[in-house]
Amino acid sequence: MASFNSRYRAILERNSTRLCIGLDSDVRNVPDALAGAADPLYEFNARIIDATSDLCCAYKLNLAFYESAGPEGMRSLERTLQRIPEGVLTIGDAKRGDIGNTAERYANSLLAHYNFDAVTVNPYMGMDTLAPFFAYEGRCVFVLALTSNPGSADFQRLQVDGTPIYMRVINRCMETYGATGSLGFVVGATHPGELADVRRHVGQDIALLIPGLGTQGGDAQATTAANDGGVAFFNVSRAIISAGKGADFADRAREAARAFVDQISENAGTTAL
Amino acid sequence: MASFNSRYRAILERNSTRLCIGLDSDVRNVPDALAGAADPLYEFNARIIDATSDLCCAYKLNLAFYESAGPEGMRSLERTLQRIPEGVLTIGDAKRGDIGNTAERYANSLLAHYNFDAVTVNPYMGMDTLAPFFAYEGRCVFVLALTSNPGSADFQRLQVDGTPIYMRVINRCMETYGATGSLGFVVGATHPGELADVRRHVGQDIALLIPGLGTQGGDAQATTAANDGGVAFFNVSRAIISAGKGADFADRAREAARAFVDQISENAGTTAL
Repeated sequence: MASFNSRYRAILERNSTRLCIGLDSDVRNVPDALAGAADPLYEFNARIIDATSDLCCAYKLNLAFYESAGPEGMRSLERTLQRIPEGVLTIGDAKRGDIGNTAERYANSLLAHYNFDAVTVNPYMGMDTLAPFFAYEGRCVFVLALTSNPGSADFQRLQVDGTPIYMRVINRCMETYGATGSLGFVVGATHPGELADVRRHVGQDIALLIPGLGTQGGDAQATTAANDGGVAFFNVSRAIISAGKGADFADRAREAARAFVDQISENAGTTAL
Repeated sequence: MASFNSRYRAILERNSTRLCIGLDSDVRNVPDALAGAADPLYEFNARIIDATSDLCCAYKLNLAFYESAGPEGMRSLERTLQRIPEGVLTIGDAKRGDIGNTAERYANSLLAHYNFDAVTVNPYMGMDTLAPFFAYEGRCVFVLALTSNPGSADFQRLQVDGTPIYMRVINRCMETYGATGSLGFVVGATHPGELADVRRHVGQDIALLIPGLGTQGGDAQATTAANDGGVAFFNVSRAIISAGKGADFADRAREAARAFVDQISENAGTTAL
């Protein structure tokens, strides 16, 4: 399989945007127009994907929203993945982390069974728990570093000998996996100063997954400037998929996605395509 | 619903053991005797449960092993949960952690859809990410503190002003959730010294989930002494469920479970039961 970054460059060349659309699709909130569908969660996603797949470089599927519907929700996830056009990348946002033989099963689930192009993982349990995810070629493993929520201050920012935990996570991962072509980090758009520090620290070719634009309040201009044109996925979820509640929800999603594409591209930095 | 600890005391009174059996059941490794079953993963679990449910206080289901089989694996999980006799507690070992609206969906999946009595959660993303799990009455939320794997040294043990991260996690959780009756912690059996410190620090009524006996090398005597008779689940997975590979695998599992029950009860501390 081609390297993850070469696949990223290919979709960037085609769709000219670093926008990633988060399919945090909530079966309780699908528009009434889909109420009679056999699989409303999938139908909702299919309409969103069809309306936006030329306006993003990736879709991020948040596993929680599928798991909460039980086995049927996982079928909706499978169907959704099949709907995403070839070339548009898929990120399984699952934030898994567990001991070796268990991590191997999580990696198998996400990177073999569901065949995501990328996943998010949680580093709290240590470096040995991340290894199985790096066994798959051509994928990206986004390690949680500094997340977008207020609680990121509770442990991620604690200082150990003058270095915050999230930067320790980044340093350990760079040492171990920096040369694999598969390492990425999650850094929230709500922290543009730290995002700029991380980008300088890891260089332009390490992929950053940057959630927090839109509903969570991250500023597109500050965020794109901080990223400085490096490999990045600017994720927006609710502000796109919940832009409309009526029968025209997919059109409203497209308009919202278009607006984010414009905000991001105006500030994508000098090394952007 | 009755409090989690009162349900724990009820099953302890009935089965007289703190043994928790981990159903890390791997569909690739089911004995040949089950190869023709319609749902081999479920059939394997059903035989193990039927052979051991009077020798444990809980079953811990490791979600990774079910997720790796896709939606069908989640059906096997549902069927397995239905097989566990009333009164024996169920722990959903999922180690989830995510921002508020996502955590709410994970909590819904584990504590409503699958209706586990307890779950494991990952604290890396902060206190706000744990809150939705505490919204369910009569359950236990086991927060990862010091895990059983070698990688637990990488971040959990880093010192912040003289206190390791895992103890900071414990302190923050005790402040916020210590009085809910729903707070527990994961502390590996591979660290008996730290386990004793944690038990003294949190008192006897905070539930500890203690993995690492058996294949991972934790010592039953040291571990039960360290726990000092507090509310605890001593988990053994592979050393029980993989004790036999032949048609008599369930009998071998029962023998192995019986041996662990004896090891644990000999050293359960003066305040047991």
